[in-house]
Amino acid sequence: MVLQKRVNLQMVCIVEIISIGNELLIGKTANSNAQWLARRFTSLGGQVRRIIVVGDALDEISSVLEDSLSRKPSLIITTGGLGPTFDDMTLEAIAQTLKAPLSINEEALKMVREKYHQYEATTGKKIDLTPARLKMATLPKGAVPLPNPAGTAPGVLLKARESRIIALPGVPMEMEAIFEGSVEPLVREAAGDVFICERSLKVTEIMESALSPLIDEAMHDNPHVYIKSHPKASEPHPWIELHLMTASESKDTAEKRVEAAAEKISQLILEHGGKVVPLKL
Amino acid sequence: MVLQKRVNLQMVCIVEIISIGNELLIGKTANSNAQWLARRFTSLGGQVRRIIVVGDALDEISSVLEDSLSRKPSLIITTGGLGPTFDDMTLEAIAQTLKAPLSINEEALKMVREKYHQYEATTGKKIDLTPARLKMATLPKGAVPLPNPAGTAPGVLLKARESRIIALPGVPMEMEAIFEGSVEPLVREAAGDVFICERSLKVTEIMESALSPLIDEAMHDNPHVYIKSHPKASEPHPWIELHLMTASESKDTAEKRVEAAAEKISQLILEHGGKVVPLKL
Repeated sequence: MVLQKRVNLQMVCIVEIISIGNELLIGKTANSNAQWLARRFTSLGGQVRRIIVVGDALDEISSVLEDSLSRKPSLIITTGGLGPTFDDMTLEAIAQTLKAPLSINEEALKMVREKYHQYEATTGKKIDLTPARLKMATLPKGAVPLPNPAGTAPGVLLKARESRIIALPGVPMEMEAIFEGSVEPLVREAAGDVFICERSLKVTEIMESALSPLIDEAMHDNPHVYIKSHPKASEPHPWIELHLMTASESKDTAEKRVEAAAEKISQLILEHGGKVVPLKL
Repeated sequence: MVLQKRVNLQMVCIVEIISIGNELLIGKTANSNAQWLARRFTSLGGQVRRIIVVGDALDEISSVLEDSLSRKPSLIITTGGLGPTFDDMTLEAIAQTLKAPLSINEEALKMVREKYHQYEATTGKKIDLTPARLKMATLPKGAVPLPNPAGTAPGVLLKARESRIIALPGVPMEMEAIFEGSVEPLVREAAGDVFICERSLKVTEIMESALSPLIDEAMHDNPHVYIKSHPKASEPHPWIELHLMTASESKDTAEKRVEAAAEKISQLILEHGGKVVPLKL
C-alpha cells in the first residue's frame, strides 16, 4: 500500500519490482509475476512502491537498476533474464551497474551441476556443462545463489549500496518457489510484525462522484484506513467496489479499524440513497 | 518489441506506459490495461519501451513523469487517476510536472455536462456539478480533452517537450474506447506503415540450454527476426514456446522473413533430437 498523507501506515520494508522481458512489452504475456509478488509482499507487511517493466536490453536494465538504487528501497526484486539464452542478461546488467565482475560462483555451479545430474539420471542422457549452462552459475562478485526447487537457474541475492537486490527467474513456478524458500523469511525479518486487514464492499445506486465526498468524510474519521473506490462499468448494472485496508502491529487493532471505517462509510452511503453489501475478496 | 542490437527493427513510435493506482501495487488488480495497450501499440507498429506502475501519490507520479519525459519517447500514456475521488491525481501531477496550471477546460466541461444530462434523462434524478464532478473537467493548461464514449471523465492529450502525454482512465472499457477513438489514429500516423509478423512454435524433447546455441545460429542467419524462448514448466511434460517476430514496411517481406527463420530453427531443432510443431498464437 502506498503511503498516503491521509493514511498513517508505517511500512518499513519498501520494495521495487523490476520485471524483465520483451514478451511483457509487446503484450504477449501478462505480468502475473508482478501481481503475485505485490500480493505476497503486501500480505507480509512490505510496501511495493514501484513496478517497472523493461525489455531484454542490457543498458535499459542497467539504467532501471541504477534509478531504483538511487531511491534506496529495502529490496529490489527482478524477475526474468536468468536463463541460458543470449537475451537472458539480468546478471550482466547487475554486474555492470554495481561494477561487480561476473565469474563462476562455486556454490551456484554446485546447484546447477546437481540439477543436471538429476536430469541425467531421469533421462539417461549425458548433459555437458556447455557455455549456455555455465552462464546460469556465472554471478556478479559478492552474490549469493538461492536454491531453485523448481528449475535450474538459481536465484541471486546481493547487497547493493543501501538496498538488497534479489534476482528471480521469470518462469512463475520457479520464481514462486525461490520466493517462498529464500525471500519470504527476509521480508518477514525486514517488515517486522505487521498485520494487514482489508475488506471490500459492493456499492450500488450511487455514482462515484457522489461517493467521493463520503469517502473523504469516512477517511477523516478513520485516519488509519485507506478507502479506494473501483468503478465496475458492467452495464446495465454498474456498481462500485469499495476497498478498505489498514496495517497495524496488532491484528485486533487492524480488524477493529477496518470494521469501524466500513460501518461509517456504509452508514453514509445509506443516508445518501445508495446500497451496500459485503463483497468476498 | 525492444530493439535488439542483433535484430534490425526500425521502430519510430516509442511509447512509455505509466499505470497509476495503489490497487496495482498491492496486487489486488492485474495490470490488464498495460498488457492490452502493449499489444495494441505493437500491432500498430509502435514500440513500448517501458511500463511503470506507480501509486496514487502526487510526488511519485510527478517524478515518474519527469523521468519518462527525459527519455523523450514519442508518447507517454498514463492510465488511471482521472476520476472524481481524492486519490485521482493524475492531472494534478501532470500540471505540476509541466508547470501548466489546472483550470476548468470549457470543452471538457461540455463533455462532462452532456454525460450528466444523459444520466439525468435516464434516471430522472437531478445531478449537480459538484466539485468532485467539476474535477473531471479541470485540465492542465494546453490540454485537449478526448471524448469518453464509455464513461464520464474525458481522456487528456498534451504536447509536453519532445513527447505527447495521453492520460486515459483506469476503467478498462473506458480506456479502450478512448484509445480506439482518439489514440489509434495518432499512433498510426506516428508509426507509419509497419507490418508485424509473429509466429509461435511448440518445442519438446530438447532443453532450453541446448536450444540456446541453435537460436543464436538461426538469428545470425535471419538478422531481422527476433526469436525468444519461453520455457513452460508444466511437469511432467515440460516444453518450450519459441516466439518469432519481425517488423517491416512490407507485409510480404515480414511474412517471408518469419517463414525463413521458422524453417531454419525447426531444422536445427530436428537435427538435435528435438521436436517442433506450430503453436496457435
